[in-house]
Amino acid sequence: MDVAELLARRHCVKAFDAERKIPEETMAKLREALRLSASSVNTQPWHVVVAAGAAGKERMARAASGPYAYNAPKILAASHVVALCARRDLDSAALEAVLAQEGRDGRFPRPGDAERQRASRESYVALHRDELQDLPHWMGKQVYLQLGTLLLAAAALEVDACPMEGFDPDVLSRELGLEAKGLRPVVMVALGYRSAEDWNAALPKSRLSAETVFTFLD
Amino acid sequence: MDVAELLARRHCVKAFDAERKIPEETMAKLREALRLSASSVNTQPWHVVVAAGAAGKERMARAASGPYAYNAPKILAASHVVALCARRDLDSAALEAVLAQEGRDGRFPRPGDAERQRASRESYVALHRDELQDLPHWMGKQVYLQLGTLLLAAAALEVDACPMEGFDPDVLSRELGLEAKGLRPVVMVALGYRSAEDWNAALPKSRLSAETVFTFLD
Repeated sequence: MDVAELLARRHCVKAFDAERKIPEETMAKLREALRLSASSVNTQPWHVVVAAGAAGKERMARAASGPYAYNAPKILAASHVVALCARRDLDSAALEAVLAQEGRDGRFPRPGDAERQRASRESYVALHRDELQDLPHWMGKQVYLQLGTLLLAAAALEVDACPMEGFDPDVLSRELGLEAKGLRPVVMVALGYRSAEDWNAALPKSRLSAETVFTFLD
Repeated sequence: MDVAELLARRHCVKAFDAERKIPEETMAKLREALRLSASSVNTQPWHVVVAAGAAGKERMARAASGPYAYNAPKILAASHVVALCARRDLDSAALEAVLAQEGRDGRFPRPGDAERQRASRESYVALHRDELQDLPHWMGKQVYLQLGTLLLAAAALEVDACPMEGFDPDVLSRELGLEAKGLRPVVMVALGYRSAEDWNAALPKSRLSAETVFTFLD
């Protein structure tokens, strides 16, 4: 696979073919891409709600109303819609759950490994909680890292995607009971296959030039 | 390429082989992956500094001192190091530059297309600048999206990577003159090939279970 070519070809799909479903085998790979995404000091401060059926997509589409109504048809016609959520807090229970998983997975073969990992991760969390005071944004950034992973994974699997910030997070949160689960929605992604009405498929991709984007040091 | 397998195999490399350089053809693809990354309403609020030689990497390594000294050897031994930066502001000049590029690239075939695109993008920028008051974090999130794109692209190209938040952004900013260019550093990524000293290569990857990460709606 030529990743540059894949990225040049992918685009934000504006209309989905409501008749085409993503095969479960492909969805399983996309879920693994989400689950295996990197995150800062492996915090994984995320949760993903997956809607496959009409009822689930209708619930998600309720958050795309008012100024965001243009996103509702995409949510309803897509094969699957994922709501990428961030944790509302990274408390010690969450951090201990990650540490315990790392232990079960065999990442602490030497004495003191777990304690060193705990201390390293806690120092980054403390930096964001206490000094920079941007812990929710830092967790949100991990979700965008996960989003970047998903978009390239979808392109590699020939699945079309439309990432959407255009929804009311409070409505989605209420609809999916996210606050009670300690979560807040960050971004939604409609996944499926474009229809003939996808006007963006015919338009060329546009990006700033390499001269604008890069500076080279000797 | 099986993206799930690629992600399962990649890991944050802890020691690079200082003798192995990434071929220019591969670096060109990684730069294209960075440049072609998606971003919210195509804002592309980023800039990337690329260091390939010893002098450039030494300048970058100056930001990895004190509590972050553990990252300096990676920066110095890696084949290439990229500093992913976010804009300090998304002013109208930046937005007009994106719009002009989209026009040159042929994305506005119909009358009114450019004006609609300008209004749509400005409404999102205004939401973050005025209402949510998180414009710098919103731009930082786009850089994390770009980071997710880069990490999977590197894995696909069999390039090892180590993303690093552990550096002093003020030192890096001074060293590279970023503030004068309207930029702030967000994350550094060392790229190259692992050495025999990469202790993380021998450890299994650890992630939270699918049961923890996903909720399914009917």
